[in-house]
Amino acid sequence: MDTLNNKKEEIDKVETILEKYIPENELKEVKKILYGLNRGQLVQPLPINKEALQIAESHDFEILASKMTAENEQLRKSRIVRIGVIQNCIGAPTTAPVKEQYKAIEEKIEKMIDAAGAMGVNVLCLQETWHMPFAFCTRERYPWVEFAESATDGESVLFIQRMARKYNMVIVSPILERDDVHGGTIHNTAVVVGNNGNIIGKSRKNHIPRTGDFNESTYYMESTLGHPVFETVFGKIGINICYGRHHNLNWLAYGLNGAEIVFNPSATVGELSEPMWSIEARNASMTNNYFVGSINRVGTEYFPNEFTSGNGKPAHKDFGHFYGSSYVSAPDGSRTPGLSRVRDGLNISEVDLNLCQQVKDKWNFQMTGRYEIYAKFLTEYIDPNYKPQIIKDPSMK
Amino acid sequence: MDTLNNKKEEIDKVETILEKYIPENELKEVKKILYGLNRGQLVQPLPINKEALQIAESHDFEILASKMTAENEQLRKSRIVRIGVIQNCIGAPTTAPVKEQYKAIEEKIEKMIDAAGAMGVNVLCLQETWHMPFAFCTRERYPWVEFAESATDGESVLFIQRMARKYNMVIVSPILERDDVHGGTIHNTAVVVGNNGNIIGKSRKNHIPRTGDFNESTYYMESTLGHPVFETVFGKIGINICYGRHHNLNWLAYGLNGAEIVFNPSATVGELSEPMWSIEARNASMTNNYFVGSINRVGTEYFPNEFTSGNGKPAHKDFGHFYGSSYVSAPDGSRTPGLSRVRDGLNISEVDLNLCQQVKDKWNFQMTGRYEIYAKFLTEYIDPNYKPQIIKDPSMK
Repeated sequence: MDTLNNKKEEIDKVETILEKYIPENELKEVKKILYGLNRGQLVQPLPINKEALQIAESHDFEILASKMTAENEQLRKSRIVRIGVIQNCIGAPTTAPVKEQYKAIEEKIEKMIDAAGAMGVNVLCLQETWHMPFAFCTRERYPWVEFAESATDGESVLFIQRMARKYNMVIVSPILERDDVHGGTIHNTAVVVGNNGNIIGKSRKNHIPRTGDFNESTYYMESTLGHPVFETVFGKIGINICYGRHHNLNWLAYGLNGAEIVFNPSATVGELSEPMWSIEARNASMTNNYFVGSINRVGTEYFPNEFTSGNGKPAHKDFGHFYGSSYVSAPDGSRTPGLSRVRDGLNISEVDLNLCQQVKDKWNFQMTGRYEIYAKFLTEYIDPNYKPQIIKDPSMK
Repeated sequence: MDTLNNKKEEIDKVETILEKYIPENELKEVKKILYGLNRGQLVQPLPINKEALQIAESHDFEILASKMTAENEQLRKSRIVRIGVIQNCIGAPTTAPVKEQYKAIEEKIEKMIDAAGAMGVNVLCLQETWHMPFAFCTRERYPWVEFAESATDGESVLFIQRMARKYNMVIVSPILERDDVHGGTIHNTAVVVGNNGNIIGKSRKNHIPRTGDFNESTYYMESTLGHPVFETVFGKIGINICYGRHHNLNWLAYGLNGAEIVFNPSATVGELSEPMWSIEARNASMTNNYFVGSINRVGTEYFPNEFTSGNGKPAHKDFGHFYGSSYVSAPDGSRTPGLSRVRDGLNISEVDLNLCQQVKDKWNFQMTGRYEIYAKFLTEYIDPNYKPQIIKDPSMK
């Protein structure tokens, strides 16, 4: 299993180090500034029941649970929802047959969803293309594109539908999609499965990376599906897939369409993006006033053939370390602890969706946004003859 | 002086606590994740010379200095610039005559600019309405509007021009402006003074808060000056004043207009915004690929008459604690340490402006932004009949 998840030299998480060394009073001050407050106190843990703990222990994954509350209102009831995010390393070596690789992951995911079910999770999201290794670094076509599935009746979709029905759970399932209706095109897609196991719809990746080993633009194109928000019995959900988290307009559009929870299923590695991981999603949460579930895969994936990374370094077989650290951030600026940087995990947050509107009413960003000037600004900007508003010091030559 | 800067119960800063307790090796890992890396290493300190240290010591302010580098290029020379940000508490009680209050602050600022000059700072920015207490919490007109000055020949402007000339320094001076050409209107303005002491132009606050004690919308209106970027001998500079940092489109517009450094002169208090302070500016820096200088005033300001805060709490005379913590963030996701939460300070960063373009070329956000879909989206959104893109679970009643 060492080739699936190389744990050496990787710390488990920042929180562990802070909690190990810093005395309680000062730790509280540090956490207040770094992790925020929910209604005046640090985000509180939610008790984890025995059943969930047992599943987690016997299948070797971490389980965390937190609670964020909102004020009581006179006219609206609380809308308490349990959000779950799952991170996982792959289940079999990348040299195994495609079917075997998929099944090995499905087996792990099934146990993790069982634990989520035991904890009464209502809305769950898996990591980006959870059903396969993140093989786009290789630039090889086969066998990797064979993981691509129909978003209506692919094997992973049928599995997720079964699990959704079993636990009365809305599940967002990010997969590599092959769309046979449209010429067999490949997409990076999130299938949204309702709590009755019905497929509500799908969303696709809006922004495709062109950086480092993220050679995804050679595999699939930008979404043309817009910024759909899915209204479910457990709230309004948007999905901002991976690299879309670097684009503030993408986050904004889900917010303006009414999202209360936006998931960011991702696959990203330490050297490239880790200091950004705790920043971008929280910024989106604070400024758009919705919950964000940030999910990163975990482990180091090794591929059969060596490849280069366009960075002057020798050819190699791994993508670097996916650092996990999945967490949930709240519209009030608070966040949950993150999952491990090296282990599979399920991170659960009980939240009151009323907090979204309450934070809007407190901060008023929705009214101070001046969208009319930016609609005009962007319309001018995309004109090929756009002249930036630059005021040059006249005393310069 | 206790009424000017109430230090009790306030910690100095998070960094102090981390450094006090966490062993070196683990501290390095924590800092890597929390503060980012610049070209593979933690942001390095820049030596502070004796002259600057002496000024800081004898006038009781903190001085920090850091260094961020960029790769060497073949065709462009490095563009090394020293950025300075200054935070300060007020200099005299708010009960003193207006002139006396101003002069007491000017005296402090002069010494801090002397230290910046001794360190060869090229571009400096002061805090929001640095020349006065942040009295908008009171909702009183007089004497507070008497601090408002002409942006061309106000007393503070003339002072800043002298200092700019003295040290060959570009200085961004955020003031309360009275525009007599336009009916004596009041504005929250940043005057940009060139290194020859010339006034290059001004920028105004684009987004005015309506939250907590930030009753600024009763004093001044939203800017109609757009998102100007000032081209100086030391780089292209934009100014996003205070509450504009919660609006990602505001940050974006300065970036698209070519800014390499955006200052965020602010006045914000702990209970309201502190967990957001280390998030929003860094997010702007990462996603728009420019340096951000984040400046918050420091101390607790007490006013002559009591006022209420619309939060059910009794009338009181203070605005809460301005937590300082001014810092600079880089386009590569790294950041400098922050200044104290309780003391005046000058934070200097030596940077290579070439890093902006280099990070753009690495991440490609400028090309993957899909601005055309967002120009269309926002144009549709501002239509009063806009229908959000919501896909409702058909199995819901």
